[in-house]
Amino acid sequence: MLTLEQNETLTKTGPGTPMGTAFRRYWLPALLSRELPAPDCDPVRVKLLGEEFVAFRDTDGRVGIVEPRCPHRGANLFFGRNERCGLRCAYHGWKFTTEGKCVDIPNAAPDVAARLMPQAGIRALHVAEAGDIVWAWFGEADETPPPLPEFEFMAVPPEQRFVGKKFQQCNWAQACEGGLDTAHFSYLHAGMRNGEKVGLHEAGRGPRPSVGDNEPPNLARLRWLAEDGAPRFTVLKHAAGLLLCAARSTDDDRLYWRMTQFLMPNHSLAPGNFPEDTALANTWMPVDDTSCWIFCYAWHPDRPIGEKERARLAAGAGIFAEVDEDYVPLSRRENDYRMSRTDQREVSFTGIRGISEQDQAIADSQGLIADRTRELLCQTDLGVVRFRETALAAAQDAMEGRTPLGVDHPGAYRVRSGDLVARGDATVEEVVQERFGEHWGMAAGG
Amino acid sequence: MLTLEQNETLTKTGPGTPMGTAFRRYWLPALLSRELPAPDCDPVRVKLLGEEFVAFRDTDGRVGIVEPRCPHRGANLFFGRNERCGLRCAYHGWKFTTEGKCVDIPNAAPDVAARLMPQAGIRALHVAEAGDIVWAWFGEADETPPPLPEFEFMAVPPEQRFVGKKFQQCNWAQACEGGLDTAHFSYLHAGMRNGEKVGLHEAGRGPRPSVGDNEPPNLARLRWLAEDGAPRFTVLKHAAGLLLCAARSTDDDRLYWRMTQFLMPNHSLAPGNFPEDTALANTWMPVDDTSCWIFCYAWHPDRPIGEKERARLAAGAGIFAEVDEDYVPLSRRENDYRMSRTDQREVSFTGIRGISEQDQAIADSQGLIADRTRELLCQTDLGVVRFRETALAAAQDAMEGRTPLGVDHPGAYRVRSGDLVARGDATVEEVVQERFGEHWGMAAGG
Amino acid sequence: MLTLEQNETLTKTGPGTPMGTAFRRYWLPALLSRELPAPDCDPVRVKLLGEEFVAFRDTDGRVGIVEPRCPHRGANLFFGRNERCGLRCAYHGWKFTTEGKCVDIPNAAPDVAARLMPQAGIRALHVAEAGDIVWAWFGEADETPPPLPEFEFMAVPPEQRFVGKKFQQCNWAQACEGGLDTAHFSYLHAGMRNGEKVGLHEAGRGPRPSVGDNEPPNLARLRWLAEDGAPRFTVLKHAAGLLLCAARSTDDDRLYWRMTQFLMPNHSLAPGNFPEDTALANTWMPVDDTSCWIFCYAWHPDRPIGEKERARLAAGAGIFAEVDEDYVPLSRRENDYRMSRTDQREVSFTGIRGISEQDQAIADSQGLIADRTRELLCQTDLGVVRFRETALAAAQDAMEGRTPLGVDHPGAYRVRSGDLVARGDATVEEVVQERFGEHWGMAAGG
Repeated sequence: MLTLEQNETLTKTGPGTPMGTAFRRYWLPALLSRELPAPDCDPVRVKLLGEEFVAFRDTDGRVGIVEPRCPHRGANLFFGRNERCGLRCAYHGWKFTTEGKCVDIPNAAPDVAARLMPQAGIRALHVAEAGDIVWAWFGEADETPPPLPEFEFMAVPPEQRFVGKKFQQCNWAQACEGGLDTAHFSYLHAGMRNGEKVGLHEAGRGPRPSVGDNEPPNLARLRWLAEDGAPRFTVLKHAAGLLLCAARSTDDDRLYWRMTQFLMPNHSLAPGNFPEDTALANTWMPVDDTSCWIFCYAWHPDRPIGEKERARLAAGAGIFAEVDEDYVPLSRRENDYRMSRTDQREVSFTGIRGISEQDQAIADSQGLIADRTRELLCQTDLGVVRFRETALAAAQDAMEGRTPLGVDHPGAYRVRSGDLVARGDATVEEVVQERFGEHWGMAAGG
Repeated sequence: MLTLEQNETLTKTGPGTPMGTAFRRYWLPALLSRELPAPDCDPVRVKLLGEEFVAFRDTDGRVGIVEPRCPHRGANLFFGRNERCGLRCAYHGWKFTTEGKCVDIPNAAPDVAARLMPQAGIRALHVAEAGDIVWAWFGEADETPPPLPEFEFMAVPPEQRFVGKKFQQCNWAQACEGGLDTAHFSYLHAGMRNGEKVGLHEAGRGPRPSVGDNEPPNLARLRWLAEDGAPRFTVLKHAAGLLLCAARSTDDDRLYWRMTQFLMPNHSLAPGNFPEDTALANTWMPVDDTSCWIFCYAWHPDRPIGEKERARLAAGAGIFAEVDEDYVPLSRRENDYRMSRTDQREVSFTGIRGISEQDQAIADSQGLIADRTRELLCQTDLGVVRFRETALAAAQDAMEGRTPLGVDHPGAYRVRSGDLVARGDATVEEVVQERFGEHWGMAAGG
Repeated sequence: MLTLEQNETLTKTGPGTPMGTAFRRYWLPALLSRELPAPDCDPVRVKLLGEEFVAFRDTDGRVGIVEPRCPHRGANLFFGRNERCGLRCAYHGWKFTTEGKCVDIPNAAPDVAARLMPQAGIRALHVAEAGDIVWAWFGEADETPPPLPEFEFMAVPPEQRFVGKKFQQCNWAQACEGGLDTAHFSYLHAGMRNGEKVGLHEAGRGPRPSVGDNEPPNLARLRWLAEDGAPRFTVLKHAAGLLLCAARSTDDDRLYWRMTQFLMPNHSLAPGNFPEDTALANTWMPVDDTSCWIFCYAWHPDRPIGEKERARLAAGAGIFAEVDEDYVPLSRRENDYRMSRTDQREVSFTGIRGISEQDQAIADSQGLIADRTRELLCQTDLGVVRFRETALAAAQDAMEGRTPLGVDHPGAYRVRSGDLVARGDATVEEVVQERFGEHWGMAAGG
């Protein structure tokens, strides 16, 4: 539970706000590289942390994310023409580079134009591309940005990776909290059969998991998720964030561990994967205070993601959502997530199709900005509590001029998340060592 | 005419407002029983007096109207699963009864859960069902609600009754005032023929009333409505509200009386019915300060309402409207009530089809909240003036801790409204006695 | 560049604002005469300067523009019945003339009605019809309006004229500034061929202008527009506004002059026409502070506008737009003006079809109300700067009780705009004299 002031601090990310100031010290995903597919392609509107920009890829392939306002008379550069290494305003032809430099003022005499140009620069974010994502850093033009965070999905070859994004109509922080909260798998993502809760499955998207004598090992895990709604949490802090460990009972005295990474300021690596599985992660990127982009990353450390799996992800499996051409989920606030009460009675606990859509519905349902001043937290909320503490500390650091957690530890982002079935008496440290080995160690020393 | 302050008092019904405080002392219609048709059926959203709720019918058939916010982390219980005598939150499975009691916290250890549960109750309205309507009372959980008002439509067998509702996009009070204002029948509901106003009819819904030598008696009444636009009003006060009596000229020295009941705080029994006719009534229930539900009741004291009449009412005859599956009229503010200017020239005074739709259009047209600080009232507005006085007095009573009019006189709601053609020299008391006999007497002594 | 206060003054036109007070001293176009095509036709809603009205044409053909609120109980007179020289309220039948006089109160006894009527008048604007336009003057009922401005388009026979209107979703002043800014023709309205800017043409609406050896004279002008993005401005002030003269280079030492009229408070006569061409003009009429009607006038001083040209204008050529039945352009803010990025690469500088649509897009893109506190003006903005000064002076005059510029000089509106190719050493005065002769002289002495 937060005070009203703490809740405001956590959730507001506009210019000058404490959390917004912290966010602006990190590299942040701004859009997918494929949204700007080729040199001189169509400019696109981008809104980040409450600020509007226009993004374009110039003739040399460089991406610019610039303020959309022409300094001449304020026309919007979104309507501009992307030509010959610059974006030209549609009104009188003023031209700007990806760095925001004004390089042509054709409606003034040459001497006047030369005099005006130095004043006519526009704001441009620092930009880098990695992992099929366009990253932005909000520092001043003359500041040197920190190194990019070393996410594993950015290090693997492109064929081992698939990325996407989806729009969510609520504040970033409650959506992020959903990603740190494995406890809700026992209900929100549960399936139903004959009036009884059964393991997680993507309702209607495929055959239901079969249970019973011949249950395959990876289905047992889904059953344990449904059966133990009160996993025991342990949270470890590291140089870029938190490792959230949650243990559930199994059919014997072993424990089923799900381990989630929270990486500052707004990333999570999802649990759910055993060592052989595709890894999944998200960034919860504020558009403004009542909406966010959720960037979705899937990758495999060792092998390509095949066509079939790639198609399944693109169609909205797992943390991905079924989206329209603007990356807005087809299931959304306005249509009650296409919930079916019949399905809720017979097929799944929510009657909403899709893991992502279930997460989205419940986060939206907390309001445009969740009220954290009235809550009754219990121990499965420990991850959420630690997330809030860590985020608020970063906000305070940023406001007091200190570097917030992780910014100068890019190697600490080289971590993994995942699941393990371990001996009941293993310590958390032993479980972590067994599951992640050096990968965790690298993070700790990152 | 009201002062700005009086107009605010009359029209605002949110928590803590004077009128809202008065409303919260009465049993109020919350939804139709058929909106919750069976045990464990789909929960529905309900908004009343500016407050949001979720309504559900549990396994035993009991209806709950509860605050929609799960006390754990604030997820919306609308998405919850209605199962085994309780509504279970979709996020982590907390479960609540129709009385708002928390009976399961599955993501906490049993001892913690037991400790949390007493703090985890949610607000629940007092609920009763009568007359195919779910009634709500806003008092505290430990308060004893007053008896239900003894409306005749609730007392008759179900086959003698038909109820419905319709949405209106304006403040409750001006919609209610329209229901107390029989004077407007001479214009708003008039038909047109050859450029002359003729009796009320439902434009385009059926054959026009024929006039002339063979005019049937019930059509003469419609002609008198059109011909005398200035009925003389007398208003009598009783233990639950007001009896509004309006006399119009006829073809001889008799008078045509229309008598409307206003019952606190927001009900009216419509005139228009002679003793043999189906009776009609409405409740004007604030959703928020700029919209309301209009509940519609039709009943016959002595005989069933047949299939044909029932179908006609369901299709939007009389005080009922043609509505979509969300009870929103097909003719509405956004489409100018499907007004036809051609029809306005040739068929009806407004060019809008349907008595209800005409009422709706004119109330909406007064603005989202009518401005009563600039008006030029005349004597046909006497009923409206008395309504405002009575409502404002109740608001003051409620704020000063007195029981507002009618709350403790449930029997005073056992009254009727209706029409009569009477001798020109009969007193109002004689007319009332002749038309209602003991039914009015019962009310007076209710 | 303006101060924040100046920008507010320029852009706000509601009751009591300085600019709004100035506007209310001028005759202003309220609607097209053809929107009220016949006696007793359908009433229409009109919003002007932030105030709502209902307009109707009575049985005798007179137009009334009256406040929409019935003084009885506030019902909206838009739903009223237009009958027998008056608009009758749909609620209780109160009836009002085009002058706002109440002439019937049928729900009161005759003596009461007679007493109420003098208090029951409603506000009515002064109205005149000229040039197929309904003009309104906002002065008090007992004030004498000034004479109508003597626009040439109103003086020519109807067959020499075509008028229309289109809706724009931004403040009036920035749309008007676009009309005073011929410099933008070099970019906003430019065509593209093989990656090079070519002369203005209506992208996709007809064959592209051919360039080269056999270029017709009127296409050379379009090429000069594209080639010289920095025309030299001279601004002359006269008794009703400003004459804005802009000179561009040609293929030899002559200059290509485009001369625009700004006429107070919100009219412009467009350049682009040589003496033999159809003349074009606009009024930028505030609906409220974030939208305006743009009235469009086309006329020829000497000959009828033929069917073919009339059809072309009605379909949206030149300053006219392709509009729906409510005069809202089909290309608009919500659909990004149906911009095609492919067309932007290959056909036109903006990828937006239509001169009017291009103007509309760029004005909208400056925001609902353009921020003039941050600008980098250069010499092609001289016309815009003078416009602002002239408008702000009128606002101050109006607030201090002086007659703002032009109100009492109706003859000064009898001016023309247009183009000329002149000797390079001709003075502006010589150019003006050559192009306009006595027409300009008449204006100066008007």
